[in-house]
Amino acid sequence: MRDTKLKDLSYAKLHEEWDQLDVEGKLKCFQDLAAADAEEFFRELSSQEEAEILLALPSREQRLWLRVLDPDDAADVLQEMPEEDRPQLLNLLDDSTKTEVTALMAYAEDQAGGLMSPRYARVRPDMTVAEALAYLRKQALEQVETIYLVYVLDGQQHLLGVISVRRLFSSQPQLKVSEVMRTNVITASEEVDQEDLSRLFAEHNLLAIPVVDANGCMKGIVTIDDIVDVVEEEATEDIQKMGGSEALGDPYLKIALTDMIQKRAGWLFVLFLGELLTANAMGYFEDQIAKAVILALFLPLIISSGGNAGSQASTLVVRAMALGEVRLRDWWRVMQREIIVGSSMGLILGVVGYIRVVAWEAAFHTYGPHAPLLAVTVSLSLVGIVLWGSVSGSILPFILKRAGFDPASASTPFVATLVDVTGVILYFSVASMILKGTLL
Amino acid sequence: MRDTKLKDLSYAKLHEEWDQLDVEGKLKCFQDLAAADAEEFFRELSSQEEAEILLALPSREQRLWLRVLDPDDAADVLQEMPEEDRPQLLNLLDDSTKTEVTALMAYAEDQAGGLMSPRYARVRPDMTVAEALAYLRKQALEQVETIYLVYVLDGQQHLLGVISVRRLFSSQPQLKVSEVMRTNVITASEEVDQEDLSRLFAEHNLLAIPVVDANGCMKGIVTIDDIVDVVEEEATEDIQKMGGSEALGDPYLKIALTDMIQKRAGWLFVLFLGELLTANAMGYFEDQIAKAVILALFLPLIISSGGNAGSQASTLVVRAMALGEVRLRDWWRVMQREIIVGSSMGLILGVVGYIRVVAWEAAFHTYGPHAPLLAVTVSLSLVGIVLWGSVSGSILPFILKRAGFDPASASTPFVATLVDVTGVILYFSVASMILKGTLL
Repeated sequence: MRDTKLKDLSYAKLHEEWDQLDVEGKLKCFQDLAAADAEEFFRELSSQEEAEILLALPSREQRLWLRVLDPDDAADVLQEMPEEDRPQLLNLLDDSTKTEVTALMAYAEDQAGGLMSPRYARVRPDMTVAEALAYLRKQALEQVETIYLVYVLDGQQHLLGVISVRRLFSSQPQLKVSEVMRTNVITASEEVDQEDLSRLFAEHNLLAIPVVDANGCMKGIVTIDDIVDVVEEEATEDIQKMGGSEALGDPYLKIALTDMIQKRAGWLFVLFLGELLTANAMGYFEDQIAKAVILALFLPLIISSGGNAGSQASTLVVRAMALGEVRLRDWWRVMQREIIVGSSMGLILGVVGYIRVVAWEAAFHTYGPHAPLLAVTVSLSLVGIVLWGSVSGSILPFILKRAGFDPASASTPFVATLVDVTGVILYFSVASMILKGTLL
Repeated sequence: MRDTKLKDLSYAKLHEEWDQLDVEGKLKCFQDLAAADAEEFFRELSSQEEAEILLALPSREQRLWLRVLDPDDAADVLQEMPEEDRPQLLNLLDDSTKTEVTALMAYAEDQAGGLMSPRYARVRPDMTVAEALAYLRKQALEQVETIYLVYVLDGQQHLLGVISVRRLFSSQPQLKVSEVMRTNVITASEEVDQEDLSRLFAEHNLLAIPVVDANGCMKGIVTIDDIVDVVEEEATEDIQKMGGSEALGDPYLKIALTDMIQKRAGWLFVLFLGELLTANAMGYFEDQIAKAVILALFLPLIISSGGNAGSQASTLVVRAMALGEVRLRDWWRVMQREIIVGSSMGLILGVVGYIRVVAWEAAFHTYGPHAPLLAVTVSLSLVGIVLWGSVSGSILPFILKRAGFDPASASTPFVATLVDVTGVILYFSVASMILKGTLL
């Protein structure tokens, strides 16, 4: 056993301290590591950190560390670098790897093609199990991404089937590969996006998915270890959008402040323009407020309750869409549910709101002789706004998705703003009807 | 090749239609499948669906399908069933599996112990590589969770190291396992929660993590395919909490409406009680509003802008905490960042707000002779409330975490409500200072 003992999270702690260092500190720390540890450590870093280190290293060391990476990882690292640094580093690779890496860089990072490795274990269908195992031992020495799933290809690279090492181990050695391979293989095309891909992994408990082109020719494999990162990343993007900013793209403490302001101020500004409409709507009811100032007291309560109900509905629906639980065609089922849930919750708040006004009047005599009518106004407005918030919050993601936008843009602040503006109109309209001839 | 062709997502579509069926439909569909397909299909279902199917099957078929499952999956399925059904199904297992399953059911589902399988491939340190491979071929026939990582144990079950099949394949056959195994193994204790565990997988690109007890004895392994589900599940819980409801625990379209109302109405009610404070705060400023109704017009704009800024800050910080990017000790760094970001964004909105009031007055003469002072009031309040929203939204998750609550409870509606109440006070206080002697 080496100096690191078997201990919980001990290795994670090393990573943790690493996070606190600046580039120079990291470089020094990295160069101090023993060669065997350094390789392992380097491969576990994020692409961004690998890029930082590579760029900071003297050029004779760059070659060594770039070559440590698998082609798919090398492509990711190069994409993290400024464009002008890429050609010089690409030239450090041998010709065949350089071709592979260049090809991978052409895919968008969030497509199956951008996640795949072109190096996978392969056998021919007419080999015997014993031959396949012997051939696999040779491939284990090469840089294939995984040897545990072996792809069966014909001479034209058509994917015929897949066989696991486990199956090879447990099959009669003299059988042909074609007799023991599995033929109904789950595959992905190069353009499948990483969100769909991660759902495939989750649903089928797979270790790897082969990527094939339109002709059924094998292009590479995506392995599950890359998918864990993808799932985290997709959830992070959605959460950040749902909170009302653009996806940051970098860790909170690392992103430059100017970038952070840019990614937040944009949405905040758009929402502000939306909120300005509340001032217009309120202006329209200015005379009513002047006559019955008391109405204004309950306005924040009412519009915020609607916003809260809408936030709940939109986050639940957006997440359900991201998980594939809710699809566009389900909009009517969702709306039915929200009508029931929204009116139930509206009734609860309406009753409490009614009691609040009546009880305050009984205790402090603050609202005057028309308190019961005011209570009815507040109460009805609450039922209406909670229902409206739930319904509009749940439908907005459908509208956005249908129009080709990301449903996660139906952020809680977006929904709240929408409900605020309509809430002002709803509240004063209800007040006009109920209080006409008394307070108004 | 069977009747299913190699086609994108084709298998996923089968799963998709499945989701639309009720229990009886599922049962019928399942019983119609060919035996080979049915086994694969059954193993890919969620624990909840497996439980549904098992309970609906006639008892002679229950035994077959329960035994198809690995012990960790069987334990999950049993935990999905009503307590009274469990003993009968447990009795369908053979004695040794029954013992394993019962032991696994004792762990909380979200701990490493609850996710682990007690069946893993193992070798002794003094075996040769050739012997280890031969022994592994035998284990490939048994129900071990994975054969690709082989754990090296002494006679007392102490974990000494790990070796991959790939390494075995590429090592000299006469070497001892102890000479080629990796000894600095990343392990987890039984109580590590699934969120920390999934971070370990993501950071180190692992296929499996061994679970050991306090004495370094091996209890089982957690494999990466279970972790993809965990990561999705944790993100879903966080998103739902951040949207201002409890985690639903079931898919949106499947959860009973009464459960949905319960999980949403609770928080909505608490937030409503918080919002009631706005009515109290407004009551305190009632005379001011009566004197200058115009002040009320901008109130929703101001409090909502603060709420929006707070929503951004809290979601970004909560997510960064969940990813381990931000820790409790970073609170001051976060606050510094939010002070800068919040005041920058506040200034932008403040300037736009100022222009809005002055421009409207120039165009429509709606705000009277004191419009410039009103503009200053609105503008200063915006700077203050956006700064306050950003700072309080970012600090609330730290306070919740420090107090032992889930930081994700710092939901956007929670932050918005907090900012609403303080926003009312801030706005009218600023107004008192600036408009004293003119409008007020």
